[in-house]
Amino acid sequence: MFISFEGIDGCGKSTQVKILNEYFISKNIKTLLIREPGGTLLSEKIREILLSKSFEITDISELMLFSAARNNLVATVIEPAINNGIVVICDRFYDSTVAYQGYGRGLDIQKVKLINDIAINGIKPDITFYLKLPIDIANQRANKRKSRDRIEQSGNQFFEKVIEGYDTIANEEPERVKIISAIGSISHIHSLIVDYIKKIH
Amino acid sequence: MFISFEGIDGCGKSTQVKILNEYFISKNIKTLLIREPGGTLLSEKIREILLSKSFEITDISELMLFSAARNNLVATVIEPAINNGIVVICDRFYDSTVAYQGYGRGLDIQKVKLINDIAINGIKPDITFYLKLPIDIANQRANKRKSRDRIEQSGNQFFEKVIEGYDTIANEEPERVKIISAIGSISHIHSLIVDYIKKIH
Repeated sequence: MFISFEGIDGCGKSTQVKILNEYFISKNIKTLLIREPGGTLLSEKIREILLSKSFEITDISELMLFSAARNNLVATVIEPAINNGIVVICDRFYDSTVAYQGYGRGLDIQKVKLINDIAINGIKPDITFYLKLPIDIANQRANKRKSRDRIEQSGNQFFEKVIEGYDTIANEEPERVKIISAIGSISHIHSLIVDYIKKIH
Repeated sequence: MFISFEGIDGCGKSTQVKILNEYFISKNIKTLLIREPGGTLLSEKIREILLSKSFEITDISELMLFSAARNNLVATVIEPAINNGIVVICDRFYDSTVAYQGYGRGLDIQKVKLINDIAINGIKPDITFYLKLPIDIANQRANKRKSRDRIEQSGNQFFEKVIEGYDTIANEEPERVKIISAIGSISHIHSLIVDYIKKIH
């Protein structure tokens, strides 16, 4: 099983990934936790570049870098794990690219999807949890953190478009993408996630 | 005018780029010399990764990394230079990607061309010089150098496919891509190049 988590920063993805992992461990099910971009030596190097403020990164370059990191991760880590019956839980996957680089940066959505398709070697999440968070609450949560990376500092207008992107993806693929309000308590959100998992597992 | 040079390592591209640059300078024509991947802070960083032997780089990641570097270079350096009437001379451009990642690595040629098209923002060379060199002479020349980078050490079979790729590109686009034997003297090759330039300048 391949599970991905999506949503803007501050939506609680990382927390839910950890708790879901503990849930599987308690059931003696082997898991692999991954955050994107990252997870391989090359992809972590690319992550470093993408989050750094030292480079002037054009939108297409950003798209290609995310996709380069993704292909490396899919081919060398995710695909082998899935083939070994391991449950893969991914903090972000290709929907982030459609939402951020497509809707957020304003790149042609068809081009973004095409690059995504080339990058993923046919490996798609079985289920995706989109933790939906309004922009004002995201900002409140972000203000409590110490610093913002290159992408996090892209501004409200950008994140409104990213949210529009996520909403569109969820509407287009309701079977795979489950919208969960990110405002509820951690345990409530977790229980909703587990209910969905039980239905497909 | 946008001029690119192509061919396998050891074909003498870099030497011809330098001499052609001197030719333009002697005519008081402004030029910009570029080698790919590179030419911007981001693209040089990506070059470092691509030539390093520290990473396990999947073929699609390699393709995406070259394209990320190219888009950054095209958008921030090549396009503005061309718009300012500067002659841009590029040591490698997108034909390298078709030849190396497409034919060499065996990736789907249509996918490679599609990614190329997305990366270049519509900016194509007006003329491309393909310095054609047989594999055995390339090896003789390479043996005289001290070390080979990650791509240079890909082996004979790889480079034979790259040469096949270049030959195919040149046959498909004879108007743009001029085949020049890389075995002749430096000055003879230069004079052939200048003859072609005079026809389009």
